[in-house]
Amino acid sequence: MPIISPIAWSAGRRVRILDQTALPGEERYADLGSIEEMAEAIRALRVRGAPLIGIAAAMAVAQEAAAPGAGDGLARVRTACALLGATRPTAVNLHWALGRMLARAESAAAAGTSLAEALRAEADAIAAEDRAMCDRIGALGAELLPDDATVCTICNAGALATGGIGTALAPVYVAHAAGRRPRVIVPETRPLLQGSRLTAWELSRAGVPCTVIADGMIASRLRRGDVSCVMVGADRIAANGDVANKIGTYGLALAARAHGVPFYVAAPSSTVDPATPDGTRIPIEERSSEEVVSWGGHRTGPAGVAVWNPAFDVTPAELVTAIITDRGVHPPAAVAGALSLLAADA
Amino acid sequence: MPIISPIAWSAGRRVRILDQTALPGEERYADLGSIEEMAEAIRALRVRGAPLIGIAAAMAVAQEAAAPGAGDGLARVRTACALLGATRPTAVNLHWALGRMLARAESAAAAGTSLAEALRAEADAIAAEDRAMCDRIGALGAELLPDDATVCTICNAGALATGGIGTALAPVYVAHAAGRRPRVIVPETRPLLQGSRLTAWELSRAGVPCTVIADGMIASRLRRGDVSCVMVGADRIAANGDVANKIGTYGLALAARAHGVPFYVAAPSSTVDPATPDGTRIPIEERSSEEVVSWGGHRTGPAGVAVWNPAFDVTPAELVTAIITDRGVHPPAAVAGALSLLAADA
Repeated sequence: MPIISPIAWSAGRRVRILDQTALPGEERYADLGSIEEMAEAIRALRVRGAPLIGIAAAMAVAQEAAAPGAGDGLARVRTACALLGATRPTAVNLHWALGRMLARAESAAAAGTSLAEALRAEADAIAAEDRAMCDRIGALGAELLPDDATVCTICNAGALATGGIGTALAPVYVAHAAGRRPRVIVPETRPLLQGSRLTAWELSRAGVPCTVIADGMIASRLRRGDVSCVMVGADRIAANGDVANKIGTYGLALAARAHGVPFYVAAPSSTVDPATPDGTRIPIEERSSEEVVSWGGHRTGPAGVAVWNPAFDVTPAELVTAIITDRGVHPPAAVAGALSLLAADA
Repeated sequence: MPIISPIAWSAGRRVRILDQTALPGEERYADLGSIEEMAEAIRALRVRGAPLIGIAAAMAVAQEAAAPGAGDGLARVRTACALLGATRPTAVNLHWALGRMLARAESAAAAGTSLAEALRAEADAIAAEDRAMCDRIGALGAELLPDDATVCTICNAGALATGGIGTALAPVYVAHAAGRRPRVIVPETRPLLQGSRLTAWELSRAGVPCTVIADGMIASRLRRGDVSCVMVGADRIAANGDVANKIGTYGLALAARAHGVPFYVAAPSSTVDPATPDGTRIPIEERSSEEVVSWGGHRTGPAGVAVWNPAFDVTPAELVTAIITDRGVHPPAAVAGALSLLAADA
């Protein structure tokens, strides 16, 4: 059930993206023909969502390796990975995907086989694994939802954020396909409104009923008692189970705890970073003040006012009921151990 | 220290308002010449803030009483009060101010004295009392602030919401005037951005340093540990100390509790409503879905999507450290008793 295809190969060694900054007003696609264009698209959030930017970066690297021209292909791939890896600091999938591409490039170079073919295959594999990952998260997560569930999410961790049916929204789509009538509460997710612009758009397109609220309404809505559970994505999960996700997630977790609402995190196992012991070590991207105090060219705050604009926050493991990955449903503190990541890293 | 005058008498039996929907881009004033125009201005939030709409409504009633023309003046006043009282359901000050105007009109009519003079005097008295109330809240609240305090507020409970230096912002202005260097964290307060549009504007104008954040950043900011206290206004306080205020206040209160940050409510004693036993009895205004999913003519959510848009929430008394009124600093559960309102009502 492809709800939307936010990324695809395009002719002329380009990568086609759905420009997510134009939603919900316009479904506009762009063909990106260089690493610089992909880096700009990732920085500007035309392509966003932790799994999707990993896929997008991998595809851009593969196209770069296929470009004709002089010079060392492996060196070009290294440069491309470095440039793309510097676009956004918080999401670990980006670096994980680029690491896979670089390793594949190195092994192809060592074997003397075609870099272009190897990297296209690796990017396809990353995308295919991501689709399968979404399906597994959906199946596992759907078992946690009652029939007629009302699920509160935040930001967009759906089809627009992945190569498949999403992470946090995957259980909803699976339950919907099974006729179990889920509904979704969608906080708009300021400053960039990925909730109202993207999540509400893809849910509406898929026929899943949803209700948009402002972020400040979350606690009141949970107090009403009609929300079955919270289901959010993650940009990075530390070894101790602390979860970095879109700014606002931590306040949502506090409100869920205050009202006894289960708080689930759904993310690919590649989001768990054994090299990050706890949430205090996760770098948090701070973005431009203009995202908060201007809107479509209109100023919404006085000129020159100070702004604090972190893109993510950290929810401590103790507020998380369970982490759903493609490999199982884990107590947060045990997630790294369950995935054998600590052993692999030690 | 008048920071701004959001309301004034104007020639030709009109009331001059600062149109707060045009801020921060434009400082635009409008002269309102009828009850209908004032009702529209209150409904559209051109005039907003619980104390200020009480003053504005009183001034409009006084001008209506001064209008020449046939008919029974007292009947016209009654009609005006009914029309204005129906504009917004949550704030109690509006009904309190209109009740005073009606009582004054009735006593003037009974005594055979000038309705117009009596009502202008009553409206002036309401405004003067409001200014004095702000000053007393400021003095009492400033004692609760450390030097170099960082105060987190929400929405606008400042000079733009009252006839004086505000309620929640009054302690900040008093501390600032005393050279005690307060700073303010200003959540933007979606959907209508009274924080970034109004609070940041008036604080900047007064020279008080402030930092705007999106509402979803509140919990993260409180976790940083640099916020001395939370100081918010109120639209209605129930007899048990439950507080109705701008949507988002309840989530802010939960985050403050989680981080051990004192949570103060600053409001005129007229905000305490002995006729409302607890927060469950406070009517919560729900406003148009367009406020959430459109912006300056642009859609920010898909067409036809469902929206939940309550304008207020209720913070239970147990999350409130103290309520600061013009008559003292009260434990929330004791506020009605301290103000002798329960006895007066019984």
